[in-house]
This record gives sequence, C-alpha cells and structure tokens, in this order.
Amino acid sequence: MDQRLNAAVLALLHEGGPGAVTMDRVAAASGVAKTSIYRRHANRGQLLAAVLATAIGLPDVPEEGEVRDKIRFALEQAWHQMDVVLGPGGLAAIVGDTDPEFTGLFRAALQPYVDALVRRIRDDVDAGLLREGLDADGVVSLMVGAHLGELVRHGEVQPGWMDRALELLWVLMAPG
Amino acid sequence: MDQRLNAAVLALLHEGGPGAVTMDRVAAASGVAKTSIYRRHANRGQLLAAVLATAIGLPDVPEEGEVRDKIRFALEQAWHQMDVVLGPGGLAAIVGDTDPEFTGLFRAALQPYVDALVRRIRDDVDAGLLREGLDADGVVSLMVGAHLGELVRHGEVQPGWMDRALELLWVLMAPG
Repeated sequence: MDQRLNAAVLALLHEGGPGAVTMDRVAAASGVAKTSIYRRHANRGQLLAAVLATAIGLPDVPEEGEVRDKIRFALEQAWHQMDVVLGPGGLAAIVGDTDPEFTGLFRAALQPYVDALVRRIRDDVDAGLLREGLDADGVVSLMVGAHLGELVRHGEVQPGWMDRALELLWVLMAPG
Repeated sequence: MDQRLNAAVLALLHEGGPGAVTMDRVAAASGVAKTSIYRRHANRGQLLAAVLATAIGLPDVPEEGEVRDKIRFALEQAWHQMDVVLGPGGLAAIVGDTDPEFTGLFRAALQPYVDALVRRIRDDVDAGLLREGLDADGVVSLMVGAHLGELVRHGEVQPGWMDRALELLWVLMAPG
C-alpha cells in the first residue's frame, strides 16, 4: 500500500504541483480507499512528509571510488530529485512559496540529505581529496543551482550540461 | 506614461506573477486609461515585452576596474533581476512554465543580456584576466543558479551569500 501511495503522490506532484495532491485525488490515483489512507496518515501534511522523506532519502553516493566520480553521482542524484521527484510544478511551488505547508515539508525532508552531503564533502576536504578550506555548504547550493540556472535560462537541462557543470565545479573543488 | 506603465507592470508581476498582469489591472495600477495603453501596445504581450526589455536591459558592468569587481557587479545585477524585477511569482512562473507566453517573452528579453555578459567574460579570458578555456556560457548559468539554489534551499538569499558565491565562482574563473 505504501508503494502505491508513494507512486500516486509523486505522480500528482510531478504533473500538477502540490495543489494537485489532495487526499481525494491520491485515493483515486492509487486505488487505496481514503479510510485506509487516513488510518496510516492523519492528514495530507503527514502523507506528504512521509512520501518526501522516502523519495529524497539520504545521499546514495558510494563510499569508494574517485572523488570526482562521487561528485558526479551526487550531482545526478540532486538533479534527479528536482527533475523527477519535484518536477516543474513542485519546483515552481517552492520558488514561489505558493503552498507554505509543502515548502516547509520539502525543506524538512531535504535537510538530512543536504547535511549528509555537506559532511561527505567535508570529509573529503579533510582527507586532502578536495580543496583546502572549501565552502562545502556553498558548493551544495551551486550543485543545486547549476540545474536551476539552466532551467530558467533554457526551460530544460540540456544533455551536455551535466558534463559541463561537473567540469566547472571540479575546477573549484579539486585540491589546489 | 511609459514610466508609469513600467512601474505598474513590474509591481503587478512582482506581487502576483504574470497572471496578475492584465490590461485592466495595469490601467488601474498605473492610472493610465486603457485606450491610451492600447494605442502604444497592441496587446498584453507587446506591453510585457517592452517592459521586460527595459527592465532587463544590457549588462551594466563597468569597462574598467578589477575583473573580480566586475564579476561581483554582474552577479549583483543578475540577482537583482530575479529578486526585484521578476520576484518569486515571476520566477515560479518561469520554472513551472505556467504562462508560456510570459516565459517566451522573458527569455527573449534575457537573451541580449546573457549574450553580452558571455562576450564580456570571453573578452577577459582572451585578455588573460580569466582562466584559459573557461566555459563562459556555463559560468553564467552558475551565476544565475547560485541565487536560485539558495532560494530553493532556504527560501531567501541570505546576506552573506553574495560574498561566498563570489568567492566560489572566483576560484573557478581566476586565471590558473
């Protein structure tokens, strides 16, 4: 049942933004009875929080391997979350803060992910694998922003942009 | 009259996104009669195009001075356009493409600005003032994205972020 609810919430969010995620529509899209949904999640906010926490999760970056490959992995995962989990409607709602409950739930679900990613970057700085004194938290904003900047400029993230963004970020992250 | 129209359109856009920019509301907010607006701009699209072109303009970066100061200047101008000209409602509409006419007009107005900024960066690369082989177009996406990444993560661009973003971008732009 959780999987069906997750899939339904994410599909509604991706297509229509958070405004499309109502208990009625989730019930219709998932085929799960509203009474069953309410038994598990007391309200829309709790349902959204659970789905976002599962969808965003924690950085899935491998512990081993070249540090540049790990950065690419993190970049792919962060962009996937914006592109596929949130979609244009979800991103627009966050940028415009049109649904403050959703914005708050999204940031709460994002925080553990970002904290873990910042920690991983700091560990690699401490190990001498990344530039000394690197602003790890700032780099994460650039990693997220690289996707958004292209989206605003071009309406989509073009296929070659991942390689180019990684090349730019690597120059500033590589040990001096 | 142009100034009153510009101010009214930008105020409506900033407060309510492009959906709030209707000829009726522009007339009410500017105090300019609708017949007078229509004499100058045949429709909402032409009015929006004129206002966006004036508001975005061309990069106002000084020709002289330290290259790092020029980058800061360009960063301030680009962020100002997102923060003040578009505002959250305008940015959200572009990210979500909820008003395709507006998105198209915005990109058309942005293009000359971006082209000129990319050219300025390439000139400084050619002059040896910036890193050889720098992806100037990609850097512009990062400059725009630095603002958006912070906005998505924190809901606002915090006061110290300009200095931190400049510091990060400078590492990747400075001559090697």
